[in-house]
Amino acid sequence: MSIRYLTAKLAQQIDEELMSTAGAFSLDQLMELAGLACAQTLATVYNKEKYPRVLVCCGPGNQGGDGLVAARHLGLFGYKPTIWIPKPGSKDIYKRLHAQCENMHIPTLPTNEPNLAENTLSTALASSDVVLDAIFGFSFKPPVRAPFDAALRLISHAGIPIVSVDIPSGWDVEHGDAGGIGLNPDALVSLTAPKEGVRGFIGRHFLGGRFVPKWAFIFYFIENFA
Amino acid sequence: MSIRYLTAKLAQQIDEELMSTAGAFSLDQLMELAGLACAQTLATVYNKEKYPRVLVCCGPGNQGGDGLVAARHLGLFGYKPTIWIPKPGSKDIYKRLHAQCENMHIPTLPTNEPNLAENTLSTALASSDVVLDAIFGFSFKPPVRAPFDAALRLISHAGIPIVSVDIPSGWDVEHGDAGGIGLNPDALVSLTAPKEGVRGFIGRHFLGGRFVPKWAFIFYFIENFA
Repeated sequence: MSIRYLTAKLAQQIDEELMSTAGAFSLDQLMELAGLACAQTLATVYNKEKYPRVLVCCGPGNQGGDGLVAARHLGLFGYKPTIWIPKPGSKDIYKRLHAQCENMHIPTLPTNEPNLAENTLSTALASSDVVLDAIFGFSFKPPVRAPFDAALRLISHAGIPIVSVDIPSGWDVEHGDAGGIGLNPDALVSLTAPKEGVRGFIGRHFLGGRFVPKWAFIFYFIENFA
Repeated sequence: MSIRYLTAKLAQQIDEELMSTAGAFSLDQLMELAGLACAQTLATVYNKEKYPRVLVCCGPGNQGGDGLVAARHLGLFGYKPTIWIPKPGSKDIYKRLHAQCENMHIPTLPTNEPNLAENTLSTALASSDVVLDAIFGFSFKPPVRAPFDAALRLISHAGIPIVSVDIPSGWDVEHGDAGGIGLNPDALVSLTAPKEGVRGFIGRHFLGGRFVPKWAFIFYFIENFA
């Protein structure tokens, strides 16, 4: 069966269409389903007995929100998630999602002192079993800026498996891991549909996000979860 | 392990607290998770090969919204859902959730002519394999009014299995099936926690709704899905 890959522009258009037509999905709905799919993917590949400690790394955009939803569900699944979120998004939904995690006593690494972000991340990686990479999504444009440039290096060299959301952080959404700074995840969960940039991805590849009508699924099917 | 049952008032308080504290859940989030739990419960008990045709019966309140979310997920799971919704809710979210189903080509039974609701329901029941009962939730107060009084009789006598959400429709939330007009479901999915009225329920009982912090789950665990 042939797989359809999305350009960054088409991915953006699908998102806008989902949230603007009659019967529009709310951002809350889309993020909840996307984040749940990420948590389910991680739980499918890395069981909580062997990999209980999940470091959920969140970027400042909507993908960071997916990560926060995933952290909450992972906590409910029985994992011990910890959140690294050096640049929290300013949207109200982002704050609510973060508070929902705090209400569940999911710890967030401190990041409010110079250079602390990096040092703290390094320590946290040493006591984690798996990373959920929700740093950059399909709207990412290079270059990778601080503190994420140093963070990607630390995560890459931590020696623990990585599950990336939509596009491995640091990869160009359409051209893949051109600069070599990007993460090299063991598993990838593509939301709605795989992006052009992951054609070269080798690893376990899941499709998540139950919001696109069925007809859109005809052309691609990688590995699905019920 | 002991099971904690909720009064209608306590259930209402938990809902209000979930939506009003810092880190409030939005109604969109709660409904998406509740409806997904309903769809997963039905799929766990009634497989789509033997029971493909699901009649999703929706009331006018928030539980009707859960039903609409469930119908969409059941469609994505591969079932053939049909919606019966004689009194659509007036909230914007209700309309969006219904339009999301229509965009997926999930049919809704016509109900805009006198008596047609009942006749159409009868015909639809004859060509359905299982009913998802999302008519009345924990804010229901007797008596059952038209067209739901006749509808409950039709559903009860249709001879197909019923999955009820939170409280079997027609049951008093605290005193159970007192009047004898209520449905007698084969499976029940309690949202957040079982309600007082279902102490006497005999059948497969699931707990759904991944939004209450873990500490609240310590006291009850019936049958869970990962």
